[in-house]
Amino acid sequence: VARNARENSVTKCDRPVPVILCGGSGTRLWPLSTADRPKQFVALVDDRPMLVATIARVADTGRYADPLIVTGHDHAGEVRRMADLAGRPEARLVLEPVGRNTAPAAVAAALIAGRDDPSTIIALLPADHVVGDPQAFHAALARATAAARAGRIVTIGIEPDRPETGYGYIRLGAPVAGLDAVCDLDRFVEKPDAETAAGFLETGGHVWNAGIFVARADVLLDEATRHAPDIVAACRAAIATDAAGDIDLDAGAFADAPSVAFDVAVMERTDRGAVVPAEMGWSDVGSWQAVWRERKAEADAAGNVAPADTVLIGSRDCLVAGEGGRVALVEVEGLAVIRGPEGLLICPLDRSQEARQVADRLAGKP
Amino acid sequence: VARNARENSVTKCDRPVPVILCGGSGTRLWPLSTADRPKQFVALVDDRPMLVATIARVADTGRYADPLIVTGHDHAGEVRRMADLAGRPEARLVLEPVGRNTAPAAVAAALIAGRDDPSTIIALLPADHVVGDPQAFHAALARATAAARAGRIVTIGIEPDRPETGYGYIRLGAPVAGLDAVCDLDRFVEKPDAETAAGFLETGGHVWNAGIFVARADVLLDEATRHAPDIVAACRAAIATDAAGDIDLDAGAFADAPSVAFDVAVMERTDRGAVVPAEMGWSDVGSWQAVWRERKAEADAAGNVAPADTVLIGSRDCLVAGEGGRVALVEVEGLAVIRGPEGLLICPLDRSQEARQVADRLAGKP
Repeated sequence: VARNARENSVTKCDRPVPVILCGGSGTRLWPLSTADRPKQFVALVDDRPMLVATIARVADTGRYADPLIVTGHDHAGEVRRMADLAGRPEARLVLEPVGRNTAPAAVAAALIAGRDDPSTIIALLPADHVVGDPQAFHAALARATAAARAGRIVTIGIEPDRPETGYGYIRLGAPVAGLDAVCDLDRFVEKPDAETAAGFLETGGHVWNAGIFVARADVLLDEATRHAPDIVAACRAAIATDAAGDIDLDAGAFADAPSVAFDVAVMERTDRGAVVPAEMGWSDVGSWQAVWRERKAEADAAGNVAPADTVLIGSRDCLVAGEGGRVALVEVEGLAVIRGPEGLLICPLDRSQEARQVADRLAGKP
Repeated sequence: VARNARENSVTKCDRPVPVILCGGSGTRLWPLSTADRPKQFVALVDDRPMLVATIARVADTGRYADPLIVTGHDHAGEVRRMADLAGRPEARLVLEPVGRNTAPAAVAAALIAGRDDPSTIIALLPADHVVGDPQAFHAALARATAAARAGRIVTIGIEPDRPETGYGYIRLGAPVAGLDAVCDLDRFVEKPDAETAAGFLETGGHVWNAGIFVARADVLLDEATRHAPDIVAACRAAIATDAAGDIDLDAGAFADAPSVAFDVAVMERTDRGAVVPAEMGWSDVGSWQAVWRERKAEADAAGNVAPADTVLIGSRDCLVAGEGGRVALVEVEGLAVIRGPEGLLICPLDRSQEARQVADRLAGKP
């Protein structure tokens, strides 16, 4: 009851600015996601591209201010189209001349969002994640916003429901006094081995790092200046002081920023970190196995997720995705069969992390 | 030396008439072979359709007379095109208004080929088999022709090189006196189980039934009249007495012939049967596993037979066939990945007999 009362009392100026980080160039979901058409622009778990779903998730103007979307120059048209599709034509684009990972994107967004009011709260949101329970997402973001208002840099930590080895973890510290369901951030934990992950699940106190961060612009910039001053300098130089509407980051200046993740540059170093644990049906959809898991509701009795015209004979727990005519699966199990613009992938779902090797090889990487 | 002398002395009138049986509607190699485009019209083991290779195999006019090709009405144009491609535009087509299996086709061919000279020898040859060693094929056919001249109905029996359970076998009888490497036909053996097949391989005396039969037209017709008179009557009624060039079998008359294989209607019953055992790199290419086996010479070091642009990561013993852009195989083993006009098949090679179920299901069969 106390929590609901607080959430309902959110005032206009408390609304966080969603900063949608849309610069990913993921290769893990080849061939539907390619270098030219990264994952966030693809419909993977339903009929909407993931970016459209992400923008729509924060489209409620009662809860959220107009979003900023940080993306690469080459994708400006596509992002603009998807913002319109999501019903948020007010979105402003922050256009990176070159990808520099999430720390420079976060700092640039903080400089832009906080220009008029440095106490503006920003919520950094990856463009290509799934959230199955939007109400839980809104509730977690409201708690994180309250903690950010109090001067913390807050991350939403996902309560694990399986001993996942594909995610980084965060160890929870003590509950923060005066804040509802917020803990200190004890430390980040690299992707664990299976035994360690099982231990985390059993003993509790560890959540998945979802890459969602909420902070006041001024707090984020203070901490970035302390721990990564070169990023702040590069970003300040890259933003024209009179920028309105979409923001074109200056190529020469922005290229000076080191390419580093916000977690690493700031969150692992700051002593203002906090965590809001949440269960909200979250997935980073980082492999075809994750796509299959997210689409389980569509599966037939044998666990196959496939278009209606698929011929399935003696086959179990398979995923057929992409377009290109009828597929027939005969006596196979746990297989991903994915058709995309660059080709056809056949891979066991439980080895589907290896699909990135295909994209790397096609890109001429060793 | 004796054998070569006899082969070289073959006179013009000794040349057998190749009767290419091209009525198959196989579904075992779906999706490259379909109801509309049966296996014999498809390039499966090299860049020529199997029918073209079969016609070309008997194109030497020193050894073989002009061929007859028995096929369905709907395929006349395709067969004519392939006879030209194979360099045998002289081929005559025998057009079946409806498929009736091989016994009526054999009888019709005997009536047509033997009209002017009943002692003409015909060699019934399936259109969709592979022969890896054409010289051995010619030698076996020459021995079979000699035995046919002596009044026998001869089948070429393939010496097994593995305990195959997918073929019917023939048990060899005693050697035939006065003929080189010809045995009596003891009896036909249904497709055996694995243990029986292994026993055949170990003890010898059993060969694979390749569906190749050589006989004088009059002998074949005598034996057919004895064991399957209704077939002979239907075929006589179906052939216009003045037929020249391609022969259109009369629809009403030919439909009266029972649909039955030549093996069953005549060979299993006649006491004039004989066998010429042969090793000639033969395969009926009856499954994707057989295609993979026939194309082994193209395989990479890990046993994969696939187009040059295929991305292969941690994958072994796979077959990628058909057209449709790049394929990437990641951590899979022993898999068939086949693209055809009706769709994409994914199936373990050692279960690839089951692919026919797909074609059956698409055709609405139970």
